[in-house]
Amino acid sequence: MDKHEVVRLNINFKTLEEFENFREYGVQELSMKEDLEHNIVENDGESPFYGVYFGNKLVGRMSLYRVEGKYDKYFDPPQDYYELWKLEVLPGFQGKGIGHALVEFAKSLGLPVKTNARQRSDDFWAKQGFEAVTYDTVRDRGENPFVWFPQGVTEQK
Amino acid sequence: MDKHEVVRLNINFKTLEEFENFREYGVQELSMKEDLEHNIVENDGESPFYGVYFGNKLVGRMSLYRVEGKYDKYFDPPQDYYELWKLEVLPGFQGKGIGHALVEFAKSLGLPVKTNARQRSDDFWAKQGFEAVTYDTVRDRGENPFVWFPQGVTEQK
Repeated sequence: MDKHEVVRLNINFKTLEEFENFREYGVQELSMKEDLEHNIVENDGESPFYGVYFGNKLVGRMSLYRVEGKYDKYFDPPQDYYELWKLEVLPGFQGKGIGHALVEFAKSLGLPVKTNARQRSDDFWAKQGFEAVTYDTVRDRGENPFVWFPQGVTEQK
Repeated sequence: MDKHEVVRLNINFKTLEEFENFREYGVQELSMKEDLEHNIVENDGESPFYGVYFGNKLVGRMSLYRVEGKYDKYFDPPQDYYELWKLEVLPGFQGKGIGHALVEFAKSLGLPVKTNARQRSDDFWAKQGFEAVTYDTVRDRGENPFVWFPQGVTEQK
């Protein structure tokens, strides 16, 4: 397995153009583009996205959002955690450990991590050390939440 | 376009087995199965799922969850609304208006509807009269929210 460098992505038109190669492109990316066009955010401002490049090409990405402990409904003791979403590696670059490198980066930040696993990706998340939560209709609303517990952290009951 | 009857699905082992044919099968369905096995819920109890049958085969489904007005962050005036998820029609049955019938059923309940549109399904939702929300990182956390406004309802700002 290669070593892949994970970098924080700058918000600029080039990055947003590269995002169009990913399947999970939607309201969030369109809103980032509008903000740039209207100078609401700075070009090259810090984004919630992290990625892996192959040469000049963005081939994998994810978004990380730090949720404050007071909103934590997943972990015991309640604490700040990272919500991870839009983890995706482009076809042709899958199976090389790029997704794994992105997840390892998220785990290395020292906080619990929660994600909404996409359809039939349970095996991938299990390999990364994530577990399915005990489903709660009100909290989870059709999500497929998988969580990673650092040492000393357990599921909130 | 055929007329498709939308029925509320009973929770039983047969329904849960049919759910395994759908791509969006995950923590929610597994938890329903466990609850049945441990007699926590009644066989044939009412589920949050609705579906369309072709003969005896479940070929389309969705889940509807009524969110209380006090939690409404999408609509003005704030009110009860339906969160719609896991809308899916099996391959071979797509393009026949089954997805449309399910969405029309949700709209017919008289409340606003919100969904997290799956990757690249924007065109489908636009055809159903849904609009993308103004993206809000804290509220939407990587979701791709599309909403349907009944008359007199607008976006919450």
